Amino acid sequence: MTEHREKDSTKLIIEKEPDVEKPVFIEGLTGIGHIGRTAVSYLIDHKNATKFGELISDHFPHWAIVNEDKELDILKNELYYLKRDGKKDLVLLVGDAQSLDPQGHYEIASVLIEYLNEIGVDEMITIGGYGTGEPVEDKPKVFGVTTSDKDKKPYKDIEIDFEHSIGQIIGATGLILGIGERFDMNGIALLGETSGILVSDPKATESVLEKVDELLDLDVDFENLEEKINESEEIIKKIKQIHDQVKGQQKTDDEPQSKDLGYIG
Amino acid sequence: MTEHREKDSTKLIIEKEPDVEKPVFIEGLTGIGHIGRTAVSYLIDHKNATKFGELISDHFPHWAIVNEDKELDILKNELYYLKRDGKKDLVLLVGDAQSLDPQGHYEIASVLIEYLNEIGVDEMITIGGYGTGEPVEDKPKVFGVTTSDKDKKPYKDIEIDFEHSIGQIIGATGLILGIGERFDMNGIALLGETSGILVSDPKATESVLEKVDELLDLDVDFENLEEKINESEEIIKKIKQIHDQVKGQQKTDDEPQSKDLGYIG
Amino acid sequence: MTEHREKDSTKLIIEKEPDVEKPVFIEGLTGIGHIGRTAVSYLIDHKNATKFGELISDHFPHWAIVNEDKELDILKNELYYLKRDGKKDLVLLVGDAQSLDPQGHYEIASVLIEYLNEIGVDEMITIGGYGTGEPVEDKPKVFGVTTSDKDKKPYKDIEIDFEHSIGQIIGATGLILGIGERFDMNGIALLGETSGILVSDPKATESVLEKVDELLDLDVDFENLEEKINESEEIIKKIKQIHDQVKGQQKTDDEPQSKDLGYIG
Amino acid sequence: MTEHREKDSTKLIIEKEPDVEKPVFIEGLTGIGHIGRTAVSYLIDHKNATKFGELISDHFPHWAIVNEDKELDILKNELYYLKRDGKKDLVLLVGDAQSLDPQGHYEIASVLIEYLNEIGVDEMITIGGYGTGEPVEDKPKVFGVTTSDKDKKPYKDIEIDFEHSIGQIIGATGLILGIGERFDMNGIALLGETSGILVSDPKATESVLEKVDELLDLDVDFENLEEKINESEEIIKKIKQIHDQVKGQQKTDDEPQSKDLGYIG
Repeated sequence: MTEHREKDSTKLIIEKEPDVEKPVFIEGLTGIGHIGRTAVSYLIDHKNATKFGELISDHFPHWAIVNEDKELDILKNELYYLKRDGKKDLVLLVGDAQSLDPQGHYEIASVLIEYLNEIGVDEMITIGGYGTGEPVEDKPKVFGVTTSDKDKKPYKDIEIDFEHSIGQIIGATGLILGIGERFDMNGIALLGETSGILVSDPKATESVLEKVDELLDLDVDFENLEEKINESEEIIKKIKQIHDQVKGQQKTDDEPQSKDLGYIG
Repeated sequence: MTEHREKDSTKLIIEKEPDVEKPVFIEGLTGIGHIGRTAVSYLIDHKNATKFGELISDHFPHWAIVNEDKELDILKNELYYLKRDGKKDLVLLVGDAQSLDPQGHYEIASVLIEYLNEIGVDEMITIGGYGTGEPVEDKPKVFGVTTSDKDKKPYKDIEIDFEHSIGQIIGATGLILGIGERFDMNGIALLGETSGILVSDPKATESVLEKVDELLDLDVDFENLEEKINESEEIIKKIKQIHDQVKGQQKTDDEPQSKDLGYIG
Repeated sequence: MTEHREKDSTKLIIEKEPDVEKPVFIEGLTGIGHIGRTAVSYLIDHKNATKFGELISDHFPHWAIVNEDKELDILKNELYYLKRDGKKDLVLLVGDAQSLDPQGHYEIASVLIEYLNEIGVDEMITIGGYGTGEPVEDKPKVFGVTTSDKDKKPYKDIEIDFEHSIGQIIGATGLILGIGERFDMNGIALLGETSGILVSDPKATESVLEKVDELLDLDVDFENLEEKINESEEIIKKIKQIHDQVKGQQKTDDEPQSKDLGYIG
Repeated sequence: MTEHREKDSTKLIIEKEPDVEKPVFIEGLTGIGHIGRTAVSYLIDHKNATKFGELISDHFPHWAIVNEDKELDILKNELYYLKRDGKKDLVLLVGDAQSLDPQGHYEIASVLIEYLNEIGVDEMITIGGYGTGEPVEDKPKVFGVTTSDKDKKPYKDIEIDFEHSIGQIIGATGLILGIGERFDMNGIALLGETSGILVSDPKATESVLEKVDELLDLDVDFENLEEKINESEEIIKKIKQIHDQVKGQQKTDDEPQSKDLGYIG
């Protein structure tokens, strides 16, 4: 079964129907410290989740990515599910791209939310980072922002921190939760405390994963996290590398000088 | 009743039919001195107007806002109505967001105007500020710009000032009035004289409110205006805060560097 | 009769059917030296052409214009026709706005061309300027660029200059002619030689008008041209004024900081 | 036969059905060192390929190009085919324009791929350059990036180099191959090693052409390549010239100041 759900310039390709019942949805895309992407990617590998779909969009950056085998693919987000006995099933979104333009962020979040609504998701966890601009000396905190009227006690019980002054959440981490609430899905954004200086932040990623572990009773083994984080760093460095490369080229050869090259999903 | 009116990427969600007859429409969104937003917000609270709808758009900034309870919502404009005995009913639009891109301004204004036309609006007041670039020493003036062939005498009688050199009105305050006229709605843009240096301008807001009060016989009590303005400043500061935050992050972590982050609705 | 022809976000509103047969189309919008706009505007007034339609677009700048009576209107292009006995009828496009974004330029030109094709236009003259970057001491030349395989002799006979190195024609002046050719309309772009320093260029405008006069046997009286040009300058100054005004505001009050404010149609 | 295939704002105009069977597709558009455009243009001329279609798009730059006869045309990509006895037929795309905006890159690639899929293409070669930022002293290398699981041996046998650290391929060269793979077309991107300083790079172009010659058994005569490259330089210089011209104008006369003028397809 391959099912396409389209809205304007964004396609959701469902390769097989996910075997889940009222699953919890977890989002982890690239962003500050790449905390969401790394955490969800680790969960998928560690728990051996099953891939069932992809999201591709004309709003993603206009280049194809080359892997270590010198083979290329277009940018995409991937959907996985994890069937669990006696525990809440999971649906996970992971990926190296977010929209380059503001409108695309809304379009992509809307395409996704409509699908999640159809498959019965009513609870969401979106993962990102909060850059303090200063080195984080102690164990990084995990800040929480919930949908409206959500009981914060269970979150406070596991030391998710609500004593922050976060005013906005940019991109998918904020919009998926905000639009989701309008479809009666509720939940929390978990934002790992990070300096904002590091390409990826292993300690903040671990802090967030611990909270996800406790919230969903995942029994996460943190042993291979370091290895995973190193892997992530390689990919993230490659994504960053395009900046200088593209900028260098532009001065000399009229390669596309997009307004948007500043953003690597 | 929930009714959706869509045009491309902008949705108007009507939660309940407004109980109004040939109402006057009043617009107050964020902008210079946040005069429109603060004035209309005060009227809504003070007169206990009834919320009946929301406007959301993919053209709004691509982030969700976090309130003091650490709960988030996407950006929106809100529609209220006020039923009045023996006086003109009112429909009010208030909100913290305008379109990030030029096309969105037209789209949002068009979606709105088509709806206002359906519910019988034939008179409009849009509220904004006019930045002089210099400190305003005396009581701030209120400048007027009307639709074509509108009799200016009633406005001049209450000292709305037409001795100005305003050449354009940017965004919703101008486009709603200009597009509205093409649907046979007419009216006036009231622009409070402001230095343009202040985050919000209480004195200019009060000047404009006095004119709206006189025009519509609203019997406004200005007692709590100061308090309302302080509240507004808190929200506006939070909106502004994202600038530095986002800019700070971009230097270090490749968060979205939108061309449009310079504009906070 | 009001007929709407729409394509995406551009509307052509035909107020009454133009009384023309195989008319020549003449375009004059704002641009370098505002030569096209001023020349066509003069022809319309001088020959008392009849207005029959308007073009409005979401791609135009997102502000409304205030006239000297302190009344506002949205930006638009206007269509006029001139019925002539024993001579070719004319259809003229004049206006203060062009698209803010590249895509809009194509969309607007396409909407227009499809309509011009329907009403039998097979010959076009588009008018613009060519900025040399240096003062123009002598009578300004008029440079020509034609559609493919167009006989240049009639143009050369009246001293339209083809000894130039113009490589591209930006915006409506180029795209209307280029897209028009694909609908079997052919013609010429007339580009007045201008320094590019002047807000408007009366001498270059006169040079171009003389060529249009000769091409179409218009019997133009140049007596009131100076007055018309002064009028144009007032409007053009107002259009320019928004630059500084908007820029001034942006530093202090978070008014929309569009990427596109740099372009005034 | 003229067949139009449209998707949003991009049109593929098929002038006559190409006489090909399971052809190999070769792409060569402007870009770094203009290697793709020059190489494919040379093949078309040299092998006398037959033009059968054009692609035009609202996402192309918003200006028309003037040729040496002072005649203008809008920007376009052109499709050619080459019927070969006993060898694979070819379909070639060449052109001076790519999309100005990220979304357009996806749209144009999608329109193209859907058509190529219909006419039976299952093998693709896209051609571009890779800027090293340093002078290339020796014979320029040709770097390869393939679609997934493509056997690299035939490519390595003719010394296409896979020992590189290319992380992304921007624009058509990457997206056509990446999107093509999703339609079961596979192939290779050939990227000529170039400093990135040269307007066009004859040596890198020759290196790439040699590989294409070997891959497709084209029997290329390199004798006239130098002449072709000189021709290309003329066109490319004209394309570049608009930069300064437009920038110069903008300071003085409010010509369109697009965010995107930095990119010349």
